[in-house]
Amino acid sequence: MNDVTFGYKDLFTSNLPAAGPRFGGFPPFYFIGGNNDPTQIPSEKLAASAADVIRRDGHLLAIYNMGLGPQGYPPLRAFVADKLSRHRGIKATADDVLITSGSGQGIDLVSALLVNPGDTVLIEEFCYQGAINRFRKLGAKVLPVRLDDEGIRVDSLAETLASLKAEGVTPKFLYTIPTIQNPTGSILPLDRRIAILALAKEYGVPIFEDECYADLLWAGGAPAAFYGIAPEQVIHIGSFSKSLAPALRVGYAVADWSVLSRMIAGKSDGGTGALDQMVIAEYFSKHFDDHIASLSKVLEDKLDHMVEAVEREFGTSVQIFRPQGGIFLWLKLPDAVDVTTLVKPAADAGLVFNAGPDWACNGGEAKPYLRLCFAMPDKATIDAGVKTLARVCHEQTGIPAFGDNVKR
Amino acid sequence: MNDVTFGYKDLFTSNLPAAGPRFGGFPPFYFIGGNNDPTQIPSEKLAASAADVIRRDGHLLAIYNMGLGPQGYPPLRAFVADKLSRHRGIKATADDVLITSGSGQGIDLVSALLVNPGDTVLIEEFCYQGAINRFRKLGAKVLPVRLDDEGIRVDSLAETLASLKAEGVTPKFLYTIPTIQNPTGSILPLDRRIAILALAKEYGVPIFEDECYADLLWAGGAPAAFYGIAPEQVIHIGSFSKSLAPALRVGYAVADWSVLSRMIAGKSDGGTGALDQMVIAEYFSKHFDDHIASLSKVLEDKLDHMVEAVEREFGTSVQIFRPQGGIFLWLKLPDAVDVTTLVKPAADAGLVFNAGPDWACNGGEAKPYLRLCFAMPDKATIDAGVKTLARVCHEQTGIPAFGDNVKR
Repeated sequence: MNDVTFGYKDLFTSNLPAAGPRFGGFPPFYFIGGNNDPTQIPSEKLAASAADVIRRDGHLLAIYNMGLGPQGYPPLRAFVADKLSRHRGIKATADDVLITSGSGQGIDLVSALLVNPGDTVLIEEFCYQGAINRFRKLGAKVLPVRLDDEGIRVDSLAETLASLKAEGVTPKFLYTIPTIQNPTGSILPLDRRIAILALAKEYGVPIFEDECYADLLWAGGAPAAFYGIAPEQVIHIGSFSKSLAPALRVGYAVADWSVLSRMIAGKSDGGTGALDQMVIAEYFSKHFDDHIASLSKVLEDKLDHMVEAVEREFGTSVQIFRPQGGIFLWLKLPDAVDVTTLVKPAADAGLVFNAGPDWACNGGEAKPYLRLCFAMPDKATIDAGVKTLARVCHEQTGIPAFGDNVKR
Repeated sequence: MNDVTFGYKDLFTSNLPAAGPRFGGFPPFYFIGGNNDPTQIPSEKLAASAADVIRRDGHLLAIYNMGLGPQGYPPLRAFVADKLSRHRGIKATADDVLITSGSGQGIDLVSALLVNPGDTVLIEEFCYQGAINRFRKLGAKVLPVRLDDEGIRVDSLAETLASLKAEGVTPKFLYTIPTIQNPTGSILPLDRRIAILALAKEYGVPIFEDECYADLLWAGGAPAAFYGIAPEQVIHIGSFSKSLAPALRVGYAVADWSVLSRMIAGKSDGGTGALDQMVIAEYFSKHFDDHIASLSKVLEDKLDHMVEAVEREFGTSVQIFRPQGGIFLWLKLPDAVDVTTLVKPAADAGLVFNAGPDWACNGGEAKPYLRLCFAMPDKATIDAGVKTLARVCHEQTGIPAFGDNVKR
């Protein structure tokens, strides 16, 4: 078919994103994307759960939302409320939960509720690219709050809120990933959570809490979620993409009914896929705690493997931010390195990574940073990939200097 | 939680849809919504299909889009291409198919591609409410093309295109449901399809063809889809909501790559739910023809039952548009009746129906019309519901006059 004979292009709206290319498969060293470890998908148990739940509730598939309303499959909402209570210090019932088509839809729904063009929103200075892009697409002014090794610096938030107030500006929310911050991997301590909630209350700014990695924690655990401490001030979202599988498109939101009811009204997708919801509910109602304990152990082992590879290949040329859970590793190269210059030569060598500037409020401040995802590749791929990255980096910048590769 | 203590409401954007109420279940006579017959869900076979496909491909769930790219699960795309070739006269391969999260997402993606505020789009004068609303939400001017018992009147389309051209306006597309038109239930004959394609080509207007009911045909069958006749002029969408189950959120689009590649770029949901896709692919690859043959038979029998009930209760006061497939029945009451006045008293009696004005380009022209969905309710519910509707209508309007209820 030849699109020149019929002029769709003359009819397209302005400002369309670029057309996608044909999918050509992943490159050998695929260190981006919130993917999980394929060996950790419990296919046999999922198959059994799917068969059980379809035999029991399959007839309900004939009806939109299974005839059970737009908040999502009730057994899944009950499971979410239960696991949040047991793991995240959150008191909620199934009625407080909205199932979403991935947590990205949660971000979209909350943004649609709160962000007019020109509004200000606060984010962590280094932040999930998908959130930054979504807020900007709606015309928001996105302002950074500074981070240190433990997450948001309370002094930076206080300063920002005060100076905005002096200008007459109330930010629409503070978007934060307090538990396994993306991309820095930190866990915000309890005292900071309490201090931030006090500031947020004083200035009338809701906290938009994204906990999509909080199920994957190493031994240290994490303090209660913001929502667990002060539910009336917080819109909480989460996901099953990281705890189970991202190809299942299921997340959730927990919020006051004044917010949740409006998110439901904005959710125009005819419901979240029923089988994805049913199978997660059936499997996780029985196996959640075992599953995340086992998965977290595998992920921490892979992280250690990647950290060793990075130390081996980059030596003293790299600062490593070892995360306390999750699926990604944040790294800083010397200030002289601009990682954006590595993107193309790395791709030519079969390697993709997240350049720091794409994961920062002010891209220019993140030029020496990069993010590597370690959950999907196996250990041999991690070894070969990190070696390739070091070689490309050396060829482009002289860093790491070969011979400098000593254990720090 | 008390939302007065924390002022979300002051922060909400303007023009939000009204907050949803708590879901309270369906009323007894639920004659709206594209639901299917719960007794026709093949739960046992779906359970077996789910177990089989998860055992085989479950490990791929660890990766966004199963690592297979954003067009959707390849076995499902191959199935779509095959069934369109065997049933709808469409030559397409899996590469020409994009899986969508319901056909509603297909409408959203095509609209985003083509509709700027102020643009004109053409629709059938009586038309799917969800499409009308989506086009209007984007700021489109929505103009009607007249219908008769066989669908779009070619003379009306010719006249509309000519008069728009005289004003210098090229409509962005003609949105049409040619096969089981929603809500009138007609099937557009082949000669009209050919004439409409010729007109559309002459004026440079793409055809946006929605075939979400075309799998559910009675014995007469249907001519080839618009896309089958002139693929370069047509964007084709379809759905599994009607042929299998609407709680599964899976539809598809077939279009020239210049269009499809941009729809993919606009699809920001992280993929369509994988289990919904996998189970449909596995089940329908083996059972599609048997499934739709059996389902169509059951639906036609229910339709006949509803038609009898309508004739029994409304007698000569109703004009019945018996559909040639699908899940809904379009009715016309005498011109004196404004069905919008029946909505509230019917709801009070436990009955919901689609008022004609909600399914029309110019609501005022559809006041005596209504749509009743027959797939979900059982026969006893259909009988009691139609009787209730006739009683409510009589109480409000004197129509049907009791005693007038003779077989036409």
